[in-house]
Amino acid sequence: MIDHNEYIDKVRADFTKGTLGETDVLADPSEQFEAWLKQAVESEVPELQAMNLATVYDNRPSSRIVYLRKIHNHKFWWYGNYDSKKGQSLEQNPNASLNFFWPELQRQVRIEGVVKKATDDNSDNYFNSRPLESKLGAWASAQSYRLTSRKELEDKLEQLHKQFEGKEIPRPPHWGGWVLKANYYEFWQGRPSRLHDRICYEQQGETWNIFRLAP
Amino acid sequence: MIDHNEYIDKVRADFTKGTLGETDVLADPSEQFEAWLKQAVESEVPELQAMNLATVYDNRPSSRIVYLRKIHNHKFWWYGNYDSKKGQSLEQNPNASLNFFWPELQRQVRIEGVVKKATDDNSDNYFNSRPLESKLGAWASAQSYRLTSRKELEDKLEQLHKQFEGKEIPRPPHWGGWVLKANYYEFWQGRPSRLHDRICYEQQGETWNIFRLAP
Repeated sequence: MIDHNEYIDKVRADFTKGTLGETDVLADPSEQFEAWLKQAVESEVPELQAMNLATVYDNRPSSRIVYLRKIHNHKFWWYGNYDSKKGQSLEQNPNASLNFFWPELQRQVRIEGVVKKATDDNSDNYFNSRPLESKLGAWASAQSYRLTSRKELEDKLEQLHKQFEGKEIPRPPHWGGWVLKANYYEFWQGRPSRLHDRICYEQQGETWNIFRLAP
Repeated sequence: MIDHNEYIDKVRADFTKGTLGETDVLADPSEQFEAWLKQAVESEVPELQAMNLATVYDNRPSSRIVYLRKIHNHKFWWYGNYDSKKGQSLEQNPNASLNFFWPELQRQVRIEGVVKKATDDNSDNYFNSRPLESKLGAWASAQSYRLTSRKELEDKLEQLHKQFEGKEIPRPPHWGGWVLKANYYEFWQGRPSRLHDRICYEQQGETWNIFRLAP
């Protein structure tokens, strides 16, 4: 049996899978992100669409995994419950950061920006593409509210199954998309001895400045 | 060739690996975390020690992967460069959140708390346990400063190799540990149709209240 504290104290990753230079990257960081995303899809990275979303509420950060559902021209979309803690946080403070971690490629992408709600059309389109069970799940869950038991949730779902039987299921008013418009990117490629490559993009007016950070 | 935007639009995880109930968990969330950490070690989850650290600077969140090096009694330790953006952020605002994502187990742990620097003894002990190349790497990198090129970093490293040849390498003054003392935990187990189990602990004086959140 391996002791878990000894394991985390001693484990060292050997980062040798790639390199990243200032001249390897595309001028547009949104296109550079799509290029890496493509490579993640081709490499069959598990859960490559999982991104960590960090938000701030009352000056405290919190973060959770959400699924990226669309990327286009510096905009990143995901969906969920507007009444959730993340929804309330984004109402109070629209600054957010995203983090993609693809250990199989020894890569990380850090993105910062400002978040808005998606349009109703966008949210409807995505909601309508989901399977029945996911649609009912969106109705069943008053996200981040305390439940007395799992049974409360399952009873609610059963009731919704009856209520919507044979009917089209509309998007709940408390459910929809958000879109982050990026103003900062960092592309991180692990290198040996912690001398990682970190290539960053900072928006300045209409252009993006590219620079390398010390690891 | 799979289109990456179509992939992220359509991909759905089937969460069927486990369940988590209010009575399955230990009374102490630090012990519950260690129990899940042990299972991650036994299941050989890749990069299980990688945690997302979210911090706040000037009311904006940022987040990055760091390695957990020790967990004991609600305290979580990691190490790095005090001059980094995360170091500056933690000086300005000690609130932080951690997120462990172990997709192989369909589990996520969210932790919130307050961060302090580790003691000098603790930082020295950890620094001294690192391999030579990592010790020199800590000296070579003025983290988060802009480099003119990778060569600048490599030249610096070569110079340090000569400077410290045959000598003991002390911990740099700008390098050391941080420790987060947790005051909130969420243990997340993926379930089908997005009806995930979310068991939370909130500190109240000397005790921890356990409750279930809607997914």
